[in-house]
Amino acid sequence: MAQFINQRENAVTDAIDGVIRSSGGALARLDGYPHIRVVIRNDWGKSKVALVSGGGSGHEPAHAGFVGRGMLTAAVCGDVFASPSVDAVLAGILAVTGPAGCLLIVKNYTGDRLNFGLAAERARAFGLKVNMVIVDDDIALPDLAQPRGVAGTLFVHKIAGALAESGQPLEIITKAAERVVAGTKSLGMSLDTCTVPGSPKEDRIPLGKVELGLGIHGEAGVEQISYVDAKQSVAAIIEKLAPLLENKPHVVLLNNLGGSSVLEMSVLANELANCSISKKLKFIVGPASMMTSLDMRGFSVSVYPVSPEEEELLKAPCTPAAWPGCMELKQIPLIELPDGLTPIQPVPSKHDETAEFLTKCCETLISAEADLNALDAKSGDGDTGSTLSGAARALIGALDRLPLADHTQLYRAIGQELSQTMGGSSGVLLAIFFTAAGDAVSSGLPMVEALKEGLKRMQHIGGAQVGDRTMVDALKPALDALSVGIAPAAEAARKGAIHTSTIVKAKAGRAAYINAEQLQGHIDPGAEAVARLFEHLNAP
Amino acid sequence: MAQFINQRENAVTDAIDGVIRSSGGALARLDGYPHIRVVIRNDWGKSKVALVSGGGSGHEPAHAGFVGRGMLTAAVCGDVFASPSVDAVLAGILAVTGPAGCLLIVKNYTGDRLNFGLAAERARAFGLKVNMVIVDDDIALPDLAQPRGVAGTLFVHKIAGALAESGQPLEIITKAAERVVAGTKSLGMSLDTCTVPGSPKEDRIPLGKVELGLGIHGEAGVEQISYVDAKQSVAAIIEKLAPLLENKPHVVLLNNLGGSSVLEMSVLANELANCSISKKLKFIVGPASMMTSLDMRGFSVSVYPVSPEEEELLKAPCTPAAWPGCMELKQIPLIELPDGLTPIQPVPSKHDETAEFLTKCCETLISAEADLNALDAKSGDGDTGSTLSGAARALIGALDRLPLADHTQLYRAIGQELSQTMGGSSGVLLAIFFTAAGDAVSSGLPMVEALKEGLKRMQHIGGAQVGDRTMVDALKPALDALSVGIAPAAEAARKGAIHTSTIVKAKAGRAAYINAEQLQGHIDPGAEAVARLFEHLNAP
Repeated sequence: MAQFINQRENAVTDAIDGVIRSSGGALARLDGYPHIRVVIRNDWGKSKVALVSGGGSGHEPAHAGFVGRGMLTAAVCGDVFASPSVDAVLAGILAVTGPAGCLLIVKNYTGDRLNFGLAAERARAFGLKVNMVIVDDDIALPDLAQPRGVAGTLFVHKIAGALAESGQPLEIITKAAERVVAGTKSLGMSLDTCTVPGSPKEDRIPLGKVELGLGIHGEAGVEQISYVDAKQSVAAIIEKLAPLLENKPHVVLLNNLGGSSVLEMSVLANELANCSISKKLKFIVGPASMMTSLDMRGFSVSVYPVSPEEEELLKAPCTPAAWPGCMELKQIPLIELPDGLTPIQPVPSKHDETAEFLTKCCETLISAEADLNALDAKSGDGDTGSTLSGAARALIGALDRLPLADHTQLYRAIGQELSQTMGGSSGVLLAIFFTAAGDAVSSGLPMVEALKEGLKRMQHIGGAQVGDRTMVDALKPALDALSVGIAPAAEAARKGAIHTSTIVKAKAGRAAYINAEQLQGHIDPGAEAVARLFEHLNAP
Repeated sequence: MAQFINQRENAVTDAIDGVIRSSGGALARLDGYPHIRVVIRNDWGKSKVALVSGGGSGHEPAHAGFVGRGMLTAAVCGDVFASPSVDAVLAGILAVTGPAGCLLIVKNYTGDRLNFGLAAERARAFGLKVNMVIVDDDIALPDLAQPRGVAGTLFVHKIAGALAESGQPLEIITKAAERVVAGTKSLGMSLDTCTVPGSPKEDRIPLGKVELGLGIHGEAGVEQISYVDAKQSVAAIIEKLAPLLENKPHVVLLNNLGGSSVLEMSVLANELANCSISKKLKFIVGPASMMTSLDMRGFSVSVYPVSPEEEELLKAPCTPAAWPGCMELKQIPLIELPDGLTPIQPVPSKHDETAEFLTKCCETLISAEADLNALDAKSGDGDTGSTLSGAARALIGALDRLPLADHTQLYRAIGQELSQTMGGSSGVLLAIFFTAAGDAVSSGLPMVEALKEGLKRMQHIGGAQVGDRTMVDALKPALDALSVGIAPAAEAARKGAIHTSTIVKAKAGRAAYINAEQLQGHIDPGAEAVARLFEHLNAP
C-alpha cells in the first residue's frame, strides 16, 4: 500500500511543517533541519516551567500536536520510530528553558532515555534546572522490569501542562507527573500491523485474530486471540486493567492507533461505557487519535485514578486541537419522540364529483400499466406501469376514508396515501407534489397555481428541470396551459411527452445512468403517464 | 479485514451512543431506536433557528459529531451509506424547531433529497417554517447536473451554525447557506476503497494507482492515475480546483477520508501550503477526519472564497470537538538554534599523575579487548571489547586537549569524548556517568561521592539495578567500597562481576532479550571490564 508522503527521509519534516503551517501561528520550530526537529510554542516567554517531550515520530499527533498553551512547550521529534539525537533534545531544552526550569517527559524506551538523559546532563552543566520523568504505562508485559511508555503519556502532558501553565514550580510539577506515571496503566489491541514508510508491511496478524498488548512501534503483542467483536475486544482489555484499578473514580483514555475508523472508535467508546468496570470510569478522553502507530488498525485504553484536583487539571482549557478534552462519561439523555409522526387522519367525507374525477384518473393509470412498463423497460427495470397502477388501485380502495369534500385536506391525504403505497423515489416525489399543493391551497392560492407550487417544490427536491427526460417535461407545460383550459393542457402534455423521445441525455432520475442510444425514440414513461392523464381528463 | 463493531445492524446505534456518552452531557438523542436515530443538543431551548443535517452513516464524525453550540442542532442518522427515513427526519425537525424555524442542510443524494424534502413538507403542514439547502460541492463529475455533496458541507454547517447561534433569522441564514453552497468546490482522492460492514472489500484500485474524484460512499472515481507521491496527489487535485477559484482569499478544508494516518494528513497539509494556488489559500480547516468514508485511505480538499464576515463565522467558537478550528495558513516561524549545542572546549592543561592514571585505565581496557569480545559474544554481537578499547585508544589520543589539571572540567570532558567516540547506549551511559560526576565534583562533593552520584544518574537513565546483569553489578559495590580503599573496591568489583555469571534473567540492557541458558556461567562483559579496571588500579 502506497502512502501519502514524498521522499521517505523527508516524511517527518514535511509532516512537522504541515502541523506548524496549519496551527495558525501558534507553533514555530528551531531552524535546525534536517537533524534537529524541535517544535515550540510560538508564544513562549520562558517565565514558567517548560515541558519538553518527544521521541520517535510515527505517533502523530504526538508529540508536536500537543505543543501549545496548557500542554507541552516543545516537542523533539526523531525519525519514524527512532529516538531524536542528544543534540536535538538539548537544542529543545536550551531553547525553552528559563529560570523556572524544565521537565522532560520521556517514554520508557532505551533510546529516548539515553538521549533525553544525556541532553539533560548537558543542559544542567549550563546551570539549568532540568528534571525528567519516564512514563512506563504499558501493562502488556507484566514481567518486564521496564514497561513501555504508550498513550497514557497524554495524562502526564495534560496534568503537568495545566500545572505549568498555572505557574507552579518545577518540584511540584515533577512530583505531580511522577504520581501520574505511577498510577497510569495502558493496554493496546490491533487487527493489523502498521505500514512503516519505505518498509514492506509485516503480515503478522492473521484474519480472525486480534493482537493484544502490542506496542506503538508495531512490536509483536503478548498474544493473538480470536477476534469476536468490539464488545469482546474491550472486555479482553478491561480484564487485564481491572485488577490494577484503585477504588476511586478513574479517567479512561481511548486512543485510536491510527487506522481504526471514527465509527469503530465510537462503538468502542460505547463498549467502555458499558463494560464491567464502567462504574469506576468517571471521565473519558477521546476517542481520538492521540498516540498512534502510523496506520495501525487498533486502539489502546489507558486508565488513571484521578483526584478532584487532577480532574480540574485534565479539564483545564488548552490550545492544542489534538487534545480532545476530558468529558464525564455519562448515561444517554433520552428525549421523547415528538408528536406528529403519525399523521392525523383526516375526517372522511363524501363528494361524488371528486370521487368520480379521482377514479377516472386512477383508471387511466391502471389501463396504461402494460404500455408504461414497456416504455420503462427501455431505460429502467420496467416497472413504472406497475408502480403507478398499484398506487392507483390503492387510491381507489382508499376513497372511503379520504376527505373528498375538503379539497385542502384532500391534497395532503392523497400525498400521504401515495407515499405509503408507492414507495421509491416516485412515491416520495408525488407525495411532495400533493402535500405542497395542499399547503398552497390552504394558504388561498387557486387550484392551478397551487398545483404549480407543488410542481416547484417537487422540482426543488427531485432536481428535475424541463429537458431532463422526466414526468416534468409533460407536467410543467400542462400546468402552464391549464389556466386556459383542459384541452390545451392535454395538448401541451402530449407535446412535452413526445419531446422526451428526442432527449438522449437524461440529467435526472434513473435514466441519467443509461446510454444515449438506448433512450433515442422512446418516450419517458413518467411523461407518458402525465400525458395520458390529461388526455383522458379532456376526453368527452 | 475484521472491524471493531458488534452486530452489523447495530453499528450505527452503538456508534451514536458512544458519541453521546463521551460528549460529557452535551448531546442527547430521541428515544426512537432502532429506526429513528436523531442526535440533539442537550441544551437546546428552541429560541433560535434550528439547523438539522444528516444522511447516511459511515461518514463519522459527520453528522452527530458536529451537533453542538455553534454548529448543528440535530443530526438525523441513516444506516451506513443509506438515507434516513422521512419519519426519522420529521422527528428531528419536530423535536428541535421552534418559532424561529429550521434549516435543513442536505447533501445532494436522491435519497436524502427525497426523505428530507418530504419530511420538510410534513413539518410545514404543522405550521413550522422549514427551509432546505442542498449541498453539491463535488466537482469530480463536471458534466453531472446534480453533483454530490461531500466534505464542503462542513463550511455550511459552521457558517450557518455561527449565524444561528448569534440569533439571525431563518431567511438570512438560508441565504448565507445558499451562498456557501454555491461557492464551495471539493474533490477527493484515495489509495484504496472502504470496508463496508458486512460486505467484502472491493479491490478496485490497483497498487501504484490512486483514484481521483471518488465519492464518500466508495463510488468509483472519475479516473485512476499513477500514484507518485503526496506532492503530485495534491497537485492533481489543485489542477482541477484552481480554474474554479475566485480572485479572493479562500478557506481550504483538508479532510481525512478515514484511513489516512495523521502523519500523512500533515504531509498533505504541507503540500497544500506549498501548492500552486497557496497564495489564495488564506485559511485552513484541518487536516482532520470530518466527512469520512469509513476506513478509506484517502483525503479530500474543499475550497470556498470567504468574505471577512464569513472568516469571523468560521473562527467563531463552537463546542463540537470534531470541528478542528479555522486557522490562518501561515509561513513557518523559524527560531534560531540556541547557543550551547557545540560544547565549550575546556582549556587543555597538563597533570602528569592524572595522565598516567588515565593511560593506565585505557591500557587495561585495550588489553582486555579480545576477552571482553568473547564474553559479549555469549549474549550479544561480540563487540563490547572493541567498543571499549576503541574509546580507550581515542581517549589516549585526546590527552593533549583534556583539562588534566582541572578535575571538575575533566569529568565533563571525558564524558564528552566518550559520547562522541563510543556511540550506542554504552557511550551515552558513560557520558552521563562522567558528566553527572563532574557536576557533583563542581558542587563540592568529594571524589568518591561524586562518582556515586554519577552512577545514580546513570542508573536512573539506563534503568539498571544491581542484579540486572550489567556493569552496575561490579561498579556499584566497587564504589561503595572505594572510601575504604582501592583494594576492597577491586575485590568488590570482582565479586560483583563473578556474580553476574549466575544471573540468568537479565532485566536491562541487550541481554534482557536473550534466553537464560545462553547466559549461564558467563560474566557480563561490562561488569568484567569494571572489575579489570579496579584490579589493575590496585596492582602494584
